[in-house]
Amino acid sequence: VKLAEGFVAVDWGTTNRRIFVVGGDGVILDRIADDYGVSSLVASQFEKEIGQLRGRYKTPIMLAGMIGSKRGWIEAPYVRCPADLTAVANAVVRPERDIAIVPGVSYCDNGRVDVMRGEEIQLLGAAYGDMMCPDAIVCHPGTHAKWAVVRNGAIHSFRTIMTGEIFALLRRHSMLSDFLQFPVELGGTFEAGVRHALDHDDLLASLFSVRAKSLLGLLAPEEAVSFISGLLVGSDTKIGLDDADPEVSITLIGDSNLMVLYGAALAVAGRQFSRIDGERAFVAGARFIAEKLT
Amino acid sequence: VKLAEGFVAVDWGTTNRRIFVVGGDGVILDRIADDYGVSSLVASQFEKEIGQLRGRYKTPIMLAGMIGSKRGWIEAPYVRCPADLTAVANAVVRPERDIAIVPGVSYCDNGRVDVMRGEEIQLLGAAYGDMMCPDAIVCHPGTHAKWAVVRNGAIHSFRTIMTGEIFALLRRHSMLSDFLQFPVELGGTFEAGVRHALDHDDLLASLFSVRAKSLLGLLAPEEAVSFISGLLVGSDTKIGLDDADPEVSITLIGDSNLMVLYGAALAVAGRQFSRIDGERAFVAGARFIAEKLT
Repeated sequence: VKLAEGFVAVDWGTTNRRIFVVGGDGVILDRIADDYGVSSLVASQFEKEIGQLRGRYKTPIMLAGMIGSKRGWIEAPYVRCPADLTAVANAVVRPERDIAIVPGVSYCDNGRVDVMRGEEIQLLGAAYGDMMCPDAIVCHPGTHAKWAVVRNGAIHSFRTIMTGEIFALLRRHSMLSDFLQFPVELGGTFEAGVRHALDHDDLLASLFSVRAKSLLGLLAPEEAVSFISGLLVGSDTKIGLDDADPEVSITLIGDSNLMVLYGAALAVAGRQFSRIDGERAFVAGARFIAEKLT
Repeated sequence: VKLAEGFVAVDWGTTNRRIFVVGGDGVILDRIADDYGVSSLVASQFEKEIGQLRGRYKTPIMLAGMIGSKRGWIEAPYVRCPADLTAVANAVVRPERDIAIVPGVSYCDNGRVDVMRGEEIQLLGAAYGDMMCPDAIVCHPGTHAKWAVVRNGAIHSFRTIMTGEIFALLRRHSMLSDFLQFPVELGGTFEAGVRHALDHDDLLASLFSVRAKSLLGLLAPEEAVSFISGLLVGSDTKIGLDDADPEVSITLIGDSNLMVLYGAALAVAGRQFSRIDGERAFVAGARFIAEKLT
């Protein structure tokens, strides 16, 4: 069985699962998104879910993301940086002939330690598929945003910033919760938050100041959310750009709504960038890995 | 009625309430702590609670903290910095002859906006009661930690850092939650977290790296909490010291357990400091205000 004759690739995260049915020519025949993430299933359910996918599609199955973690189905140990798509493909775990579990990537150097699972296929797929320069700074926004230095098509180093998770915690449970029920809007208030974060290193103080400004009538409650979002995305961008050679191009990849926010932050920082659709990059990476498997 | 003939002072916060029965000579005759904070009561209960205090103690009552906020009983508008104890006493709101509501303090300058309610009595009481230098950097750790520049006994400027709230959010609701069920311990791991925060500006990245280190077996789960606490307290201390003249002494005031953590962080930063008991400072400040009222 050659996986390249057509396969199902699953981007199986903590909260969500996205299933792509890919034809032998690389065309996406079907896509299904649901909330059967790893955290919503118990161990015994993984095998059942995977069995259902096999029964339904009768093709080989590639599993990426948290499904290959300790809290997932079967662990696929991390590949260390520098990691290119070939290194990732070579480290795939195959519990059965027609099932491939894609490993994550780890970084451990310069006193910094980091891990990713799932994003590596998008990042490396984009590089392999000529969607971006083989040397680039790549930002993948999300619950745990990733900023990777890609050199010659390999992930050289990367950092994770828990921006999306902190935003969600603040919205659901914090004293800023009331403000964060409004929608984020691009514009001067968002940009002022970004600018503040780029110029200062005081995130947990500037977040409180939003409440103080509101109490003193200096900021409308419905504007506060855009300032807070700007603070968080700006703070994230500042850390991400810390490693970034000013000459190297920046590529955003992933969810289109988040890319709009990060693009606005990069514009405030005076940086050029390009955008890549995360699904397209995921399928390109998955197809390369599939072709390596026989 | 002179409040100075003996009074009840209430430090009435968002979550907790502390009642001090103070004799005419300034001695604390009784102290009661409960969880009838402002957020646990509805508007109609404030009057009832205050009526009970009056009935029980038959003395004037001084109310400080969130009880004087918009979400409290009756609002006592903020006094702007620079604010000394006389300015705070002059702005007390007296809905009845034997009830005094102490205002909070606001700061609005250099593009920074901040508010405090409740801590001002402790900070100014400590300065008035000669517990600290009239010129000092004062840190009041807590859910919303305060770092104040005190000059000539007045709060000149201050910042709030939501360190305690973020720690609580991470412990209760985040992907770091499992780690944060262990107790924080002082020592090398805590100090490494502080040192990292003092040397880097990457809080939301370094928090994620704790999970990465644990996944790769580089950090024991029961040690992670101390590193995370060190990161947060160190990050807080760095912001607080940003305004601090290296010559000016640093004073910690408030909860004794938190002062131990902040003292350890200040030691890593190479700064001298002294400690003041928050209750003693609160009563000293309350007594000064009481003496101004006739």
